[in-house]
Amino acid sequence: MIETVSGGDETLSGDPLFHARSVAVVGASAKLGTIGGRPVKYLQAYGYRGAIYPVNPKYDEIAGLQAYASLSAIPGPVDMAILAVPARSIPEALKECAEKGVRVAVIFSSGYAEVSGDGAAAQEALAESARQLGVRVLGPNAMGVMNLHNGLMATFSAVLERDHRAGPLGLVSQSGAYGAYIMAQGREMGLGFSQFTSTGNEADLDLGELALRTLEDPETRAVLCYIEQIRDGQAFLGACRRSLDLGKPLVVIKVGRTEQGARAAQSHTGAMAGSYETYEAVFRQCGALSVGSVEEMLDIAQMVELGVRPGGRRTGILSISGGAGVLLVDACQAEGLHAPELPEAVQARMRAHVPFAGVANPVDFTPQVLNNPDVYADFLEALCEYEEIDTLIIFLAHTIQYEERLGLRLVDETEHALKRFGKPIIVVAQSDPGTAVSRRLREAGIPCFEDPSRAVRAVAALQRFQDLREAYLKSGAPTSPVPIPKADVSTEQKAKRFLAEHGLTVTREALATSRDEAAVLAADIGFPVALKLSSPDIAHKSDIGGVRLGLSDSETVKEAYDGILADATAGAPESRVDGVLVQEMVPPGVELILGGKQDPVFGPMVLCGLGGVFTEVLKDFVMRPAPIGIAAAKEMLGELRGFALLEGVRGRQPADIDSAAKAISGLSHIVAGASDWLQELDLNPLIVLGEGQGCVVADAFIRVSDTESVRPLAS
Amino acid sequence: MIETVSGGDETLSGDPLFHARSVAVVGASAKLGTIGGRPVKYLQAYGYRGAIYPVNPKYDEIAGLQAYASLSAIPGPVDMAILAVPARSIPEALKECAEKGVRVAVIFSSGYAEVSGDGAAAQEALAESARQLGVRVLGPNAMGVMNLHNGLMATFSAVLERDHRAGPLGLVSQSGAYGAYIMAQGREMGLGFSQFTSTGNEADLDLGELALRTLEDPETRAVLCYIEQIRDGQAFLGACRRSLDLGKPLVVIKVGRTEQGARAAQSHTGAMAGSYETYEAVFRQCGALSVGSVEEMLDIAQMVELGVRPGGRRTGILSISGGAGVLLVDACQAEGLHAPELPEAVQARMRAHVPFAGVANPVDFTPQVLNNPDVYADFLEALCEYEEIDTLIIFLAHTIQYEERLGLRLVDETEHALKRFGKPIIVVAQSDPGTAVSRRLREAGIPCFEDPSRAVRAVAALQRFQDLREAYLKSGAPTSPVPIPKADVSTEQKAKRFLAEHGLTVTREALATSRDEAAVLAADIGFPVALKLSSPDIAHKSDIGGVRLGLSDSETVKEAYDGILADATAGAPESRVDGVLVQEMVPPGVELILGGKQDPVFGPMVLCGLGGVFTEVLKDFVMRPAPIGIAAAKEMLGELRGFALLEGVRGRQPADIDSAAKAISGLSHIVAGASDWLQELDLNPLIVLGEGQGCVVADAFIRVSDTESVRPLAS
Repeated sequence: MIETVSGGDETLSGDPLFHARSVAVVGASAKLGTIGGRPVKYLQAYGYRGAIYPVNPKYDEIAGLQAYASLSAIPGPVDMAILAVPARSIPEALKECAEKGVRVAVIFSSGYAEVSGDGAAAQEALAESARQLGVRVLGPNAMGVMNLHNGLMATFSAVLERDHRAGPLGLVSQSGAYGAYIMAQGREMGLGFSQFTSTGNEADLDLGELALRTLEDPETRAVLCYIEQIRDGQAFLGACRRSLDLGKPLVVIKVGRTEQGARAAQSHTGAMAGSYETYEAVFRQCGALSVGSVEEMLDIAQMVELGVRPGGRRTGILSISGGAGVLLVDACQAEGLHAPELPEAVQARMRAHVPFAGVANPVDFTPQVLNNPDVYADFLEALCEYEEIDTLIIFLAHTIQYEERLGLRLVDETEHALKRFGKPIIVVAQSDPGTAVSRRLREAGIPCFEDPSRAVRAVAALQRFQDLREAYLKSGAPTSPVPIPKADVSTEQKAKRFLAEHGLTVTREALATSRDEAAVLAADIGFPVALKLSSPDIAHKSDIGGVRLGLSDSETVKEAYDGILADATAGAPESRVDGVLVQEMVPPGVELILGGKQDPVFGPMVLCGLGGVFTEVLKDFVMRPAPIGIAAAKEMLGELRGFALLEGVRGRQPADIDSAAKAISGLSHIVAGASDWLQELDLNPLIVLGEGQGCVVADAFIRVSDTESVRPLAS
Repeated sequence: MIETVSGGDETLSGDPLFHARSVAVVGASAKLGTIGGRPVKYLQAYGYRGAIYPVNPKYDEIAGLQAYASLSAIPGPVDMAILAVPARSIPEALKECAEKGVRVAVIFSSGYAEVSGDGAAAQEALAESARQLGVRVLGPNAMGVMNLHNGLMATFSAVLERDHRAGPLGLVSQSGAYGAYIMAQGREMGLGFSQFTSTGNEADLDLGELALRTLEDPETRAVLCYIEQIRDGQAFLGACRRSLDLGKPLVVIKVGRTEQGARAAQSHTGAMAGSYETYEAVFRQCGALSVGSVEEMLDIAQMVELGVRPGGRRTGILSISGGAGVLLVDACQAEGLHAPELPEAVQARMRAHVPFAGVANPVDFTPQVLNNPDVYADFLEALCEYEEIDTLIIFLAHTIQYEERLGLRLVDETEHALKRFGKPIIVVAQSDPGTAVSRRLREAGIPCFEDPSRAVRAVAALQRFQDLREAYLKSGAPTSPVPIPKADVSTEQKAKRFLAEHGLTVTREALATSRDEAAVLAADIGFPVALKLSSPDIAHKSDIGGVRLGLSDSETVKEAYDGILADATAGAPESRVDGVLVQEMVPPGVELILGGKQDPVFGPMVLCGLGGVFTEVLKDFVMRPAPIGIAAAKEMLGELRGFALLEGVRGRQPADIDSAAKAISGLSHIVAGASDWLQELDLNPLIVLGEGQGCVVADAFIRVSDTESVRPLAS
């Protein structure tokens, strides 16, 4: 963290990235349209009240400000330096920053990792130098940072050519140009931003830390992130947790989702983005609101801007058009909200006004309102007073714009109901920005969306955030995983013993080193049994005939023992053989596949899927960052497309879902606790028995990070 | 069809619904804001050049026009009558219409099927009376019809309070108010409509016929439909076919998709909408472009308005921001377009201008363009000249609005490239409607979208339409199914014989009436065999032990024969028994379930799914209106989520997909040909063998419409 600055002007106290009391523009130009000139121009235009020091030996004065030949020539202290000089001058400039006591350097210069291998080396050197000098760096190749609340416009982004008002929306973008476009689009929608940071190449300050700093800013109520790749997974996860702590949504758009998109992102930034599935799993688990388009992002932003939070999933729909009511109900159900049928008393109250109105929910107040606006007020009151409605969505079409007097009246009534009952109200209507009606809606703090589906999607997203936040606050801070010392997990039996020591139920089994011992062990375990080759060198036993199932008497067991060893000698002559594992046959149940891995960006991950065609054909699996609790594990199971199989279909008994969830949660703690040595883990299958009967790990394979435990089968 | 009208004024020749030469407003009012006053006001305001006859005995004159006491008092002929009178006066008014020779009556009056059972009866009587009198009726409970090209505004919709310009977009809506909202939203986007028809209760003219009439109008280039339910499936299918014939897209939004939405739609219109899956199957098969939101509909409309049609799926992406390029590529892949990598020669040509630009596709022309707009022109030319790019999508951000001179220059270059190369070009940029840049884009016929994902979705939708159209035109008009006379299909064997006569391969099998005969037949067919109870009364044989599989010698066959009869006597003592079917055991393969049914709205439908968990757990099946050709049947299989199973997963051999497609197509012709007696058909399973080895119907059940063939098992 950068230490905060403190000054007499309170807009210039806090994180120096957003509140620097003084800014030097190194490479400043008197041509105010150039990259070196624009920061000076924008700092002045937006009324920045700290000191501005243009630095350029070629000038005495720039835009009415005294110019300095160098950073050291500046008389007062400098919190932030903007470096608008060629890449080759950066090493020297950075040294001067350190000497001058600069806290943060904003580096516009390009020609680093985004262009070539040489550039990447230069960037590495820059990062190292900044660390040693104790100067934090934004960039290089960054469009800069701006704080709309104090005019600290350390940027050359031409988006400031039009006037932007300050608001509650933070923006952190890995594309400067696209970030600016988001700001420009937000402005058209009447939204106000607090800060916008273009992260550039992230030699030092990276997306996660910048999102966190933006969240911490008191003027900010939500942070929008445009993401191509996350470099520091833990920093990002920290930002997600802080977002839940503070109740400030972190709304993210991740690009490079598809194969072609990922390829394009890689060529744009020079770095691999990692699998989109992993990102989505992280977003979902950690409470980041992932959106599919910038429009969706700005729709959520509009709700935040006006301070509206949905009150729950039970939605009341009030509409001037029956058709729109149907559309809204469809959208609600598709997005996980619902429109409960109103009780007869509420319906009767509304029917008293308009006998033939549809009043079950959606409520259709009909064009009757054109003759008598009181109908609207009464319907609205009835819905607000009914306690089992949490949130109201009201469709008013173009009517409020086309018939202004009526429109103003309806807005008044809506504001009145909002103040009186405090239930969140969202309007869907034409929202011509210049009109009196639109102004009144905004003043009343009522969001207005033009498209019904978009309105519902925004409401549902914020509702999801609130639900996640509630669960998060209730469960407290996530327990850090208990470190698990390295163990020998080189064979199926050892891996399972390790899992059993950490709470999972595994098959009863024992290692036989002779055919007779196998028969004795089998009798002990109870017929039928399975026999499996035990070798630290062979991961896929069945590929070389190393597995025999359903052996029901001693003789068969002995024959199977011999057969397995013969096949092993033939199929993998170089492999060490410990013996043959004699194992109970688990009764039939639903087969799950559980897995764990260490993701290079986000660390330990746990996954689960259903066996058979679900995995092979449908690739149906769900992932989460580990560790997770039992409730989250249950959620994972619920997200499987084949979940119905666990619930019991076509008369089959339901499976023990609770115990499967416990196993997943337990496994996630193992993957997280053993993250320094356990690389990958595969339980295939975990057999889930009937309700109340538990689940059993029937096979397990663990790969440790030094990869010593597995020699490839073929040489 | 209504006969066309013909007049000297060519805007008043054609379908009288849109081109009536004279309009009577029955129930006209001098208060021009009322329902009876508005048509007069709007007809005048929009410059309708035919005769307007207000009819109301209370007035001598309305809005400067002579008023008449009755329709019969009008001196000249009347093509259209607007009936703005209470429902109780409608029967008399309709008779007067017939006497006066009115071709079409537009009935605003409500109080029919939408309110009560009595209302429904009145509506039925109205429809019957209209048929007898030979007057076509729009409504009742309709907001009316408007033609923007000749000012025939037979409507009370207040959407006309603002000025709308005429354009190429037809609109047919089952919600008057929501249709008006679509028009109002389109107006804000600068779109122009040709006609808007509110269908009302559809006592006579229904959605399908109205869509067809709108398609036929020469001023219309696309028809937008808001649909709650389709009453006449064949009329709608006819409109779909005409849309493909004419190359005018039919863009549909169907509401009531979800369970709650369907319930709401039912209470809105008083009629069941039918399953959304059936609608989607019809839309897909018949070339209607189904959209999820009105916004998506209007985005497609914008492309149509400007006459832009995508040229193919190979998309070139040119962007001022690398980030937007990634987002666009993602969107393309998600929507079935793709951005092929450019060949080195094209890349080199662009790199010559901007050495470090990403030029593989997406092409990032970088902010370099701010210094030198020629870069843009050269990049654009390179992309246009490269033959393996069909369509261009260009991201220009807010820059073209914020820097107007540059913006105008870029638009000029884009228009130049468009004219020179004729490749479709779509721009994504801020599209502030009032600016010079936006005006220039529109004049140049270049669609401009603000959101990249929306732009790609619209392009992909029109591309889909073109592909469907091409396939449709190539395959010619659909062959009408050959009628299939009623057959006895009361048992599995009879049903299969019937299927075999119509080209499907079924299991070899024969009916045995004694245990010895069963053994002889089995030897003849070849062991192993299956034995199945044959009874016209029992549909689910296995439920009462009527099926024995894998019998491998004579003795087992004899025992099975006795067992089946004994079980049948015990389990279903009242059922008739024909004997026992001896059947070959088909070798293992991929099991499909094929089905057919007569949908109450759309008629014959064919469906297919994969057996096992795919059907039981995932409800994974695909439906189409029958009959279909082999190519469409193959498409159906490709849409199954488990399709990979047919292609062969994990080393399994691929199945004979061609033969399965032939079976589906064959079955679809049976369902269609026998539609007057075959109610439902179920082939479970159809076993698809390995490539080149065909597929075999292993079990079949057919229900005929009088349901005589199946008596319930339990009394």
